[in-house]
Amino acid sequence: MRVGVVGGGQLGRMLALAGHPLGITVTTLDPNPASPAAQVAPAISGAYGDLDALAELARACDVATYEFENVPVDAARFLATRVPVHPDPTALEAAQDRLAEKTLFTEVGLPVPPFAPVDDLGSLRAAIEGIGLPAVLKTRRLGYDGKGQFVLRDALRADDAWRAVGEQPSILERFVAFRRELSVVAARDADGAIASYPLVGNEHRDGILRISRAPADVGAGIRAAADAHARAVLERLGYVGVLAIELFDVDGELFANEMAPRVHNSGHWTIEGASTSQFEQHLRAVCGFPLGEVSPRGTSAMVNLVGALPTTTDVLAVPGAHLHLYGKEPRPSRKVGHVTIVADDTAAREDALARLLPLIPEA
Amino acid sequence: MRVGVVGGGQLGRMLALAGHPLGITVTTLDPNPASPAAQVAPAISGAYGDLDALAELARACDVATYEFENVPVDAARFLATRVPVHPDPTALEAAQDRLAEKTLFTEVGLPVPPFAPVDDLGSLRAAIEGIGLPAVLKTRRLGYDGKGQFVLRDALRADDAWRAVGEQPSILERFVAFRRELSVVAARDADGAIASYPLVGNEHRDGILRISRAPADVGAGIRAAADAHARAVLERLGYVGVLAIELFDVDGELFANEMAPRVHNSGHWTIEGASTSQFEQHLRAVCGFPLGEVSPRGTSAMVNLVGALPTTTDVLAVPGAHLHLYGKEPRPSRKVGHVTIVADDTAAREDALARLLPLIPEA
Repeated sequence: MRVGVVGGGQLGRMLALAGHPLGITVTTLDPNPASPAAQVAPAISGAYGDLDALAELARACDVATYEFENVPVDAARFLATRVPVHPDPTALEAAQDRLAEKTLFTEVGLPVPPFAPVDDLGSLRAAIEGIGLPAVLKTRRLGYDGKGQFVLRDALRADDAWRAVGEQPSILERFVAFRRELSVVAARDADGAIASYPLVGNEHRDGILRISRAPADVGAGIRAAADAHARAVLERLGYVGVLAIELFDVDGELFANEMAPRVHNSGHWTIEGASTSQFEQHLRAVCGFPLGEVSPRGTSAMVNLVGALPTTTDVLAVPGAHLHLYGKEPRPSRKVGHVTIVADDTAAREDALARLLPLIPEA
Repeated sequence: MRVGVVGGGQLGRMLALAGHPLGITVTTLDPNPASPAAQVAPAISGAYGDLDALAELARACDVATYEFENVPVDAARFLATRVPVHPDPTALEAAQDRLAEKTLFTEVGLPVPPFAPVDDLGSLRAAIEGIGLPAVLKTRRLGYDGKGQFVLRDALRADDAWRAVGEQPSILERFVAFRRELSVVAARDADGAIASYPLVGNEHRDGILRISRAPADVGAGIRAAADAHARAVLERLGYVGVLAIELFDVDGELFANEMAPRVHNSGHWTIEGASTSQFEQHLRAVCGFPLGEVSPRGTSAMVNLVGALPTTTDVLAVPGAHLHLYGKEPRPSRKVGHVTIVADDTAAREDALARLLPLIPEA
């Protein structure tokens, strides 16, 4: 079986590594000829919108998928004229537009913070009226130059906010004071079977995921709600593959924040911490194989390596630590690897984590 | 870190796959340019004794090792003039000669079946006298054309036995009726730390390993004896890397059969079934990193795929099954992959195994 992946970053790399034992050849397409994935599997070098490169990818695979949600939808649709593409490009489309995404969540019954579309200053003022403050103004599509978001606490600053987001089509969203961020990573196969990994608890710093813990320390009610949310979205989209949904826990009620139609950073712990890794699970789904078991093995924590690398010897001396490097040159804010800790119980996990964290440079 | 591996079969492949996440580039040397390892990592094509190819391997690595025990000792020694080689070529030497191997075992206190060197018909007759029958005459070095062994039940057939082994330097070994075959896979790092995986129970058919179960169902006394045996050999050889010793359980007493100075088929279950796989463990040791934890995750069984491949979909539908294909064309008696089952308890493992085995073609 041959799988084509648009994108050759660390997610493409880990998909490729999951493919090797299964006899699945993963070929990636990436503008960088020395991408993380190109170091471990066949790769095509080209822009995501390059039709020749996409055609070459289509010839190199039996089924295509993507490793990031900002793949041009046209590229995915072009691929889909030549090979099956999973998940369907409609999932990409929904994930690329915050308004479409929130609308989808609402339609399938996921609670979301109150939101309203903003297309100009007038509709922004109306949205402030309707939703109340504080609120966050976010561009509907990928932000640029850090101009993607503006926290609005004062209606008099509507003009500033509108300029700050580049006067792009946006949404205004009520600011919610959440207790913690959780994520649910789940998969649906071609026959409609669904499997959700244990819920993950996430800690961010400077907008970048730093630590995930799984299973998250939540009650059965929250777990069941998250699984139901994932199921609702997967079924609505007729989705095939792995999907992640970020959730805010607001006093025990879950609000959906955003989704990623792909394997997700908060699922990296599954490589050692679950029966089947999210990477193998995604390959199983898109190739038409049955899903694997998602039960956890003990309890896990995943720490991202951002901007700089720790010393390998030090990391490997931490009990239960598993090192994953992506073959990337360290640069500020760049994810260059992660470390997963697997332990028998939470206390042992936290002990190992306390030993690991001082070894991680904060660049 | 860069590791060179002499041999690019499935063991070299799985070493290379274990290297990728750790940032260790594994380069293999193999006569086959499309070897299993060459499909997933850099590879040099050349004969094991080709000095130019060996020099190229030495340039491509910081430390060298091997994936099979019949690497020419001269090749290993040549490499050792250029880069550190682990385990030391003396371990290869001992493993390549049954007399040296049994002598080593005896010297460090491992019980072995009574044996005697045989260099001609006269010494064979003397050995029969001394050891008694039934006994097995085995060439000291690698057998050829199936002529490597002869089971001798009648002293009158000494001539036949001597001809059967090609009149090569041999040993005569008392035939032991063992209850089961076990193996201990253990590692020693550069600082002398030693870690033994749980003892493995092995089932063979036609001289080929078919099923390993880990942890083996043995008492604490046998486990402790096996660990002590592994430690004795590792320390005597100043060994760095993973070593496997095959043991016969004869009514609760362990006899050492043979050793493999490398990762071993009976350790494949560790990829999913132990905290650290034997492949990562070997890389950790030869690179000078600390050893990883060897505790089992639940209970495992490993089934070799010999001569033919099962249907991927069928295998992946078995609970807890992990498929490993080696990228080899199926041929009779050829190991082309393995499947590992990991389960919470022995009953669940045996249930899954009972579901898996009918799916495995017996070619």
